[in-house]
Amino acid sequence: MALIVQKYGGSSVGSAERIKHVARRVARWKRAGHQIVVVVSAMSGETNRLLALAREIQAHPDPRELDVMVSTGEQVTIALMSMALMDLGIKARSYTGSQVKIVTDNAYTRARIVSIDEENLRRDLREDHVVVVAGFQGIDAAGNITTLGRGGSDTTGVALAAALTADECQIYTDVDGVYTTDPRIVPEARRLNTITFEEMLEMASLGSRVLQIRSVEFAGKYRVKLRVLSSFEEEGEGTLITFEEDEKMEHATISGIAFNRDEAKITILGVPDRPGIAYQILGPIGDADIDVDMIVQNVGQDGLTDFSFTVHRSDYAKALEILKPVAAHIKAREVQGGDKIAKVSVVGVGMRSHAGIASTAFRTLAEEGINIQMISTSEIKISIVIDEKYMELAVRVLHKAFGLEQAA
Amino acid sequence: MALIVQKYGGSSVGSAERIKHVARRVARWKRAGHQIVVVVSAMSGETNRLLALAREIQAHPDPRELDVMVSTGEQVTIALMSMALMDLGIKARSYTGSQVKIVTDNAYTRARIVSIDEENLRRDLREDHVVVVAGFQGIDAAGNITTLGRGGSDTTGVALAAALTADECQIYTDVDGVYTTDPRIVPEARRLNTITFEEMLEMASLGSRVLQIRSVEFAGKYRVKLRVLSSFEEEGEGTLITFEEDEKMEHATISGIAFNRDEAKITILGVPDRPGIAYQILGPIGDADIDVDMIVQNVGQDGLTDFSFTVHRSDYAKALEILKPVAAHIKAREVQGGDKIAKVSVVGVGMRSHAGIASTAFRTLAEEGINIQMISTSEIKISIVIDEKYMELAVRVLHKAFGLEQAA
Repeated sequence: MALIVQKYGGSSVGSAERIKHVARRVARWKRAGHQIVVVVSAMSGETNRLLALAREIQAHPDPRELDVMVSTGEQVTIALMSMALMDLGIKARSYTGSQVKIVTDNAYTRARIVSIDEENLRRDLREDHVVVVAGFQGIDAAGNITTLGRGGSDTTGVALAAALTADECQIYTDVDGVYTTDPRIVPEARRLNTITFEEMLEMASLGSRVLQIRSVEFAGKYRVKLRVLSSFEEEGEGTLITFEEDEKMEHATISGIAFNRDEAKITILGVPDRPGIAYQILGPIGDADIDVDMIVQNVGQDGLTDFSFTVHRSDYAKALEILKPVAAHIKAREVQGGDKIAKVSVVGVGMRSHAGIASTAFRTLAEEGINIQMISTSEIKISIVIDEKYMELAVRVLHKAFGLEQAA
Repeated sequence: MALIVQKYGGSSVGSAERIKHVARRVARWKRAGHQIVVVVSAMSGETNRLLALAREIQAHPDPRELDVMVSTGEQVTIALMSMALMDLGIKARSYTGSQVKIVTDNAYTRARIVSIDEENLRRDLREDHVVVVAGFQGIDAAGNITTLGRGGSDTTGVALAAALTADECQIYTDVDGVYTTDPRIVPEARRLNTITFEEMLEMASLGSRVLQIRSVEFAGKYRVKLRVLSSFEEEGEGTLITFEEDEKMEHATISGIAFNRDEAKITILGVPDRPGIAYQILGPIGDADIDVDMIVQNVGQDGLTDFSFTVHRSDYAKALEILKPVAAHIKAREVQGGDKIAKVSVVGVGMRSHAGIASTAFRTLAEEGINIQMISTSEIKISIVIDEKYMELAVRVLHKAFGLEQAA
């Protein structure tokens, strides 16, 4: 008998039929003798419907009231899921974030979990109930309703698994696991049986949007065993996200190829190469609440250097605007930029101990005539910025170059 | 400066536009220097939408989970109303039933209010906020979400007015007050400036569905000054529901003509006239959860009597079914019934001290050739059962006979 937390996203509970489908799955796990906590999101479309309603009233809805409203989405789902379970003869009981007491800070619309009171849930589990908890929501110390922000239901699932020291946290989604890359681009892409937390963090933040990055961080911090599974398929092991140090296994050198084309690059040419210059450039960008992703600065010559970074494409125009007076002030030669770029990343913990990964990647792209605009590397990934029109080609040839279509 | 509780029903908050309209009205009261508590229902249609969704999952939805779900309707409205007020520059803060702590008993879907913790509301009012409270909902002692049943938002309004010792509880609805009868039937029907609680109870329970009967009882018990107003008209005093004893005024003999055609009558003929016979007949009806309205038993002769009562029309077939073996058992001669009836009632505290009201009513109907099937009277009303095809005619001629089209 295991204690398992199962989280089902909005599309998995998007209709009465789908809720019944999920209930049948939960019932099978329950009848197999496990203790089950189910975490659900709002039915797909519901959160957007509510947001639209709020914006009809107030152009910029008050965050406290927005959370009061948006949190009703999951509240509806927990009730429906509990009813569906009871209809199958399974004892079930729903809990809002407030009823569990999932206490968060007071940052409406993007609150962070501070503590969880799991006593009532434990009592219900002992009394043979399936416990159905609203994802995405909590209350602050004063009893105000808060939400964790988009994708926060994953975080709720992991946090509950941590609080209950569950054996596993299963995240059911519309894909059946984490793939070596997007199968829509590379048909040979292969589902990974396991992936390390570090790789998952790199993959998630780079655009393989299977899991909310915060939930993965949380799982890593509290050592929660996390598994990604399909809510539409009955069989399948999904992908287990492991602690590298815990698991004795021969890990593949490279786990996957991530990519995105949401970014734009900005380069300041001919910057006087002196201490504090990076701060002078990026300080005003940060002050304007613009997130910076890659940052590249090369060694200078003749006392000058070139400084490049990427921002989200929607912030591109604003960032350029901000930089013009900055460039003049620091006496840089020129500001250049481009928003027709893509970032492709090769990710794998194995590259720590394997030489030649970078050169294989660069050679592979060169053979296809793909020019590399920026390079940035970490311990377990190499990110390359290229012209966006070559993105799919680059992903395909890199996937093949590292033999990712074959099982490790 | 007064402390006023204003309750707005589902049709008053049925769209973003209507919510903004209500907010402007609330803002005017606030700016006039009053402390305002706003109680809102779910947007019209929302509760039914949620109920339908629940029934897609479970034919007879679990009551606890139903309350978890249905209570989200008001939760959405409180947030939207608070946003609309803030958009007008009015400080506002929303409260769910759970956040106020409106504690109820554990009777899901029809809970009764046990206590209200009004401390937080008082603090917010002192700090110049409009407080926006979800009607219809509470929590039980264990923290489970409960609802008060249909129309429960009126009860919430009155209960909050009682707890806060408000100066007035204003119920905004889609009519501008309580009328002497339904203006759709009698165009000359007149809005009453005042009506007593007792009359209101008789009018409400008899089908003039302006206010929820429980909220009127509550208001009477806690001496809350209750006023019914139109949420669609800007002017108008509405109808004040008064404590007869408190108000020095010349009251009209008759306040109004109420009616309904939701009932069916059942008569058992030739019942042996002995003690316990009423219980033998109505006991099985009550056991089947069928509500009985009028009960009439005439003096018997030859040791036999006739026993009649009315039930809701939807219970008619079931009640007949139940009575057949009962009638055989008590050796009654025959069971008769009819569901093509209407009940018309003349209501007024004035009839206590005025003779001849009943005879005026009977003569008026006789002059129109309307046959009376059953009569039942109380201190302040006379109810008459007739063939339903004469209902509108009866209401019109009685309204005229008692001069209700003229101001008192």
